[in-house]
Amino acid sequence: MGIVVQKYGGSSLADAASIKRVARRITEAKKAGNDVVVAVSAMGDSTDELLELAEGVSPLPPARELDMLLTAGERISMALVAMAISDLGFTARSFTGSQAGVITDSVHGKAKIIDVTPGRIRDAIADGHIVIVAGFQGVSQDTKEITTLGRGGTDTTAVALAAALGADVCEIYTDVDGVFTADPRIVRSARKLDRVSYEEMLELAACGAKILHLRCVEYARRYTIPIHVRSSFSHKEGTWVMDPAEGDTMEQAIIAGIAHDRSEAKITVVGVPDKVGYAARIFEALAAAQINLDMIVQNISAAATSLTDISFTLPRTDGATAMKALDALKDEIGLASLMYDDKIGKISLIGAGMRSHPGISAKFFSAIAAAGVNIEMISTSEIRISVVVDEAQVDAAVAAAHTAFDLDADEGEAVVYGGSGR
Amino acid sequence: MGIVVQKYGGSSLADAASIKRVARRITEAKKAGNDVVVAVSAMGDSTDELLELAEGVSPLPPARELDMLLTAGERISMALVAMAISDLGFTARSFTGSQAGVITDSVHGKAKIIDVTPGRIRDAIADGHIVIVAGFQGVSQDTKEITTLGRGGTDTTAVALAAALGADVCEIYTDVDGVFTADPRIVRSARKLDRVSYEEMLELAACGAKILHLRCVEYARRYTIPIHVRSSFSHKEGTWVMDPAEGDTMEQAIIAGIAHDRSEAKITVVGVPDKVGYAARIFEALAAAQINLDMIVQNISAAATSLTDISFTLPRTDGATAMKALDALKDEIGLASLMYDDKIGKISLIGAGMRSHPGISAKFFSAIAAAGVNIEMISTSEIRISVVVDEAQVDAAVAAAHTAFDLDADEGEAVVYGGSGR
Repeated sequence: MGIVVQKYGGSSLADAASIKRVARRITEAKKAGNDVVVAVSAMGDSTDELLELAEGVSPLPPARELDMLLTAGERISMALVAMAISDLGFTARSFTGSQAGVITDSVHGKAKIIDVTPGRIRDAIADGHIVIVAGFQGVSQDTKEITTLGRGGTDTTAVALAAALGADVCEIYTDVDGVFTADPRIVRSARKLDRVSYEEMLELAACGAKILHLRCVEYARRYTIPIHVRSSFSHKEGTWVMDPAEGDTMEQAIIAGIAHDRSEAKITVVGVPDKVGYAARIFEALAAAQINLDMIVQNISAAATSLTDISFTLPRTDGATAMKALDALKDEIGLASLMYDDKIGKISLIGAGMRSHPGISAKFFSAIAAAGVNIEMISTSEIRISVVVDEAQVDAAVAAAHTAFDLDADEGEAVVYGGSGR
Repeated sequence: MGIVVQKYGGSSLADAASIKRVARRITEAKKAGNDVVVAVSAMGDSTDELLELAEGVSPLPPARELDMLLTAGERISMALVAMAISDLGFTARSFTGSQAGVITDSVHGKAKIIDVTPGRIRDAIADGHIVIVAGFQGVSQDTKEITTLGRGGTDTTAVALAAALGADVCEIYTDVDGVFTADPRIVRSARKLDRVSYEEMLELAACGAKILHLRCVEYARRYTIPIHVRSSFSHKEGTWVMDPAEGDTMEQAIIAGIAHDRSEAKITVVGVPDKVGYAARIFEALAAAQINLDMIVQNISAAATSLTDISFTLPRTDGATAMKALDALKDEIGLASLMYDDKIGKISLIGAGMRSHPGISAKFFSAIAAAGVNIEMISTSEIRISVVVDEAQVDAAVAAAHTAFDLDADEGEAVVYGGSGR
């Protein structure tokens, strides 16, 4: 008898009926002979409602108190799930992040899990209970303050619990059937992946696939926890995120999928003197402003002028801050001008198989070109190729690449994308 | 510089505007040079909303999970109050009951406070913070489970904190100006009391005055914590609940006030054999059914029959259970019949001064008689006389007694009863 950790997000817990449905699902896993530990998010839009309450009393609430407030959301959903389970004749015990032993650093609003000490969970399991844990929250090691984990927090809680408890699997329940070769809202013929490796999933998450958060995948890879991403609305097998089995590499597809991201902006610094230290000054200034850059491209300088252009992408939300930091440098290092473009999209082709297959880039670029889409920037890693294009052309480029790499589902296996619109 | 503990109920924290108003009030006490610790209830009707959610998933939710759910309410309000205070330029730290060291027994839903270990509160005070504590909740000593204190829980939390911290005063903020000689909704000329002793307040609370809960007054008396009951909507002095100062007795009014209670029912057991052990059987049966009796009256038996009648009052909510328990006894001890009346009201005249003043009962009964009201039962303690009358005549009897004992306010001091309708 093994331990199964499950995670249900807010869209699966929107109201009483959904909570009862989730409770039935949980008890099925228990009936099948497993010990079951469940991480839950706050119900539906309740986190947004709490944020609205906070805005009502203070435009800039202290982070400590905001965490105290937001953690009430999972407290409510976990108690309700436990009640619904008890109503089905099983016993359940709910635990807050703190009670569950989710120990974090003390950065309110985006704390990192540094340890999990699940003594109370183990005791409850030993007593035969189903355990429900509040996701997204923990308690800080030094100050014993309540913290929240930030985006993707409940997924990360689930994986961290799975690791600490030595669970067989961490099941992430969502409102789609699994991880797809592309966003099914853009590519109708996108295919559900049966398996994807940690490193591919990391690249997919980093490049805009919203199904799993980067932190959760990183945690799972570090502790080798198999993640099963599946729908809470059906019993179909979803996508397994795990290391390929020995000797499995031969059969691995060259390309796992195509991710896209419309959340970035592009800044071009025009006319940077092509001398030692100038580029460094620019990136130092951006780092000092706490801005995470994504792609960076520097053109070869025109010999006549010894000036170069540097382009980079960054989260749109950091755009104004970055432009301000660069503007302050303008006179100091003699930049010609700054250009800001927030109408871009990034498209990434991801696959561990591309390591051993030459010609992937050429095929990718020419598929995009054939669709009439201009490529503005390129960056690559060992298992990924990303391009920046006009935001309006993202869909066309994704569809063209999807077809070019034979990712389209056959007639028979075409999926219908549904779910509750999360 | 002393410590002031304040308590704000749900009606004072109904929305963002109310929370901001309460925050201003709290910072005024801080500005006046006090260390301030505040116990808060859940916002407005939010506890009822949480109960509705629970009903939606389970008709009979486990008590542990219900406590987990309900404690989210104060968590939300305390964080919002702390944010509103911070918005006024002060620093505040909110603490759950568990964090504040409110240690209880493990009876979910109506736990009793058995200790308060306010280490974190003291540290926060020492750091200059205003401290906000979730009322109504604690953590059980043995099982470390989250508990709630039941009715009057936040008042009790406030007094318990005041006792543990050696506070100068516990201010209970409400939506009326203080404790009145009678319910101002019934007696327009009711007068606000400037002071009332613990023992009088205990009797008032036990006899239906809803302003303070019995447990809170008991706690305050045990630790000699002065309670200042006052309005959160004005800056007027309210009512001080405290022991009379030495030599103060001479000036003490004979009567503190008149309380009434419409929550009880009366049961009469007709034709009980007037022999040793029969009455005991009846009360044993009621005790076994967990019913708390209030007034008990046994008539002298009629010599001819050696049968007696026993009447008692009890909470209406226990009426059906009690009748069932008695019905089971009917044949065993040969009762003639049972009579149930839930259309009764209890009126109580309370005053420490009545000890040394004879004739109070006579004056009370004749005032009620003069108002045309029939008295059905009488019971007395050293500082209280209670009568049971027809429920429909409660208002008339209260008003008549109020006038007879000269409690009516003079023209000038007449109060206008207002507040938010709590």
